[in-house]
Amino acid sequence: MTELTLRGGKRVRPALAYHAAYCFDHGLGDECLLDAALSVELLQTYLLIHDDVMDEDGERRGGPSVHVAMTRQTGSEPRGRSLAILAGDLGCAMAQELLVATTLPKERAIAAMRELVRMQWEVIQGQLLDVVGGAPPAVVQDAKTASYTTRGPVRLGAALAGADASATACLERYGTPLGQAFQLRDDLLGVFGKAASLGKPVGADIRAGKRTALVEEALAEADESQRAVLSSTLGDAAASDEDVAAACRVIEETGARRRTEALIDQLTTEALAVIADCGLREEGLSFLRGVALLLADRDR
Amino acid sequence: MTELTLRGGKRVRPALAYHAAYCFDHGLGDECLLDAALSVELLQTYLLIHDDVMDEDGERRGGPSVHVAMTRQTGSEPRGRSLAILAGDLGCAMAQELLVATTLPKERAIAAMRELVRMQWEVIQGQLLDVVGGAPPAVVQDAKTASYTTRGPVRLGAALAGADASATACLERYGTPLGQAFQLRDDLLGVFGKAASLGKPVGADIRAGKRTALVEEALAEADESQRAVLSSTLGDAAASDEDVAAACRVIEETGARRRTEALIDQLTTEALAVIADCGLREEGLSFLRGVALLLADRDR
Repeated sequence: MTELTLRGGKRVRPALAYHAAYCFDHGLGDECLLDAALSVELLQTYLLIHDDVMDEDGERRGGPSVHVAMTRQTGSEPRGRSLAILAGDLGCAMAQELLVATTLPKERAIAAMRELVRMQWEVIQGQLLDVVGGAPPAVVQDAKTASYTTRGPVRLGAALAGADASATACLERYGTPLGQAFQLRDDLLGVFGKAASLGKPVGADIRAGKRTALVEEALAEADESQRAVLSSTLGDAAASDEDVAAACRVIEETGARRRTEALIDQLTTEALAVIADCGLREEGLSFLRGVALLLADRDR
Repeated sequence: MTELTLRGGKRVRPALAYHAAYCFDHGLGDECLLDAALSVELLQTYLLIHDDVMDEDGERRGGPSVHVAMTRQTGSEPRGRSLAILAGDLGCAMAQELLVATTLPKERAIAAMRELVRMQWEVIQGQLLDVVGGAPPAVVQDAKTASYTTRGPVRLGAALAGADASATACLERYGTPLGQAFQLRDDLLGVFGKAASLGKPVGADIRAGKRTALVEEALAEADESQRAVLSSTLGDAAASDEDVAAACRVIEETGARRRTEALIDQLTTEALAVIADCGLREEGLSFLRGVALLLADRDR
């Protein structure tokens, strides 16, 4: 669990929580604030580990996923999986611990725990929808990703700072479109991203058959022959690089890629407009502005 | 998750938490106290679901375990397992929610959350030791079982009541031997218990090869031929009923069963002696006394 947490990742969640608190006169020691903000990074570790077990994903952040590393170490797949489930469970406990062991004012510690619980609820519901299938990608992704990537962290930061309900709601209206933009960028990177910066193989999402909003849009706009190309490669784990490249071209030719880029711009602009008008302190606000632009235009 | 939670079980954990709070002048509304005490029942649901996934146990409380039920429903084993992991994760979130959503005084809500986190830490460490193997059964079982079956719940009850550290420590000194007695009784039931009351097949622990304290003691005291009988059946999932009966006889003949029964008596007596001397209110104390006798001598 430690290795996966320290292996990398963008740290965007704790950074958002930390800087969201700086949008207010939080009056906390920096160490106390950092510890509490890191709870959401451990939440992420927990969720990633279980997610990789569920999706049987072998790679994460440029190294083996936890169940794969533990399978290698113990020489047993069921045991590797068990250790990964437990490592995830431990991450969940440690995330909670960071909030109840702090020197936070009690009122704020409880408000922060409430946000942590809310994130768990939302993301687990999103994952359930994902496993069961059939729900619109946008609904699944809002629950599965925006919940604890952007919306949850900024709400957590507001809770840590003791912000009132209206300021918290304002940050949430920033976090939701930003999370959608984040996910759409993820969809694009899963198809058009570079392996070296992503830490996972190119076209992985095509071979895994992920029905992202991007893919759904391409399928909806594709003509018959394009749809045949894309459909036959989607979810084919053994698809050749040429097949994957052809599927990517369909996503390009249908305009799905271009329209998704435009939507990311629009959502980012919306997020930026919201926080410009919330009476937030410049100290935190400048980060929230910068990270919105960065997340919308990242390559990993 | 709901079905497994409502299917049965002894409810000993929330009952202990609830009545431990009544050992003090807790001053809470009963509904608030009940909700908070139930957090440990949802913790149990969470842990059981993940435990069954890890042990690949098909039955629980006289019905299918969650991953088996979900595998049947979805027609896919990986999907059934994924849904079980998520159901467990959801139970964990709901356990936390019961403590942060209550009308408890904030100080007590945080103290209670700390106990919930402590239980998660301890039990996950115990399960890790169990999966990795090699640790003494008593150490594993204290962490894996006593932690959240008796010790944790009474500490939780004390936290809910706002008890001071010395009274909490006293309840803990009751909970620890009681938890050990509970586990030893479990070991005995796993070998000598009746299927109808247990909700799982007789001899299941023998076929599963569980290295309980009972089994370790029998192996230590067995002569060469007895050891051969027991060792060859332990962990043999396909062992016949006759083989299992012979293994049980070895546990009986080596005196391991008798000595385990005596140890349960001794631990129960110790637990009862501790709480007699803690200055606890009779209102809660009478339950703690009764449940100690009941747990030591149960048939399921």
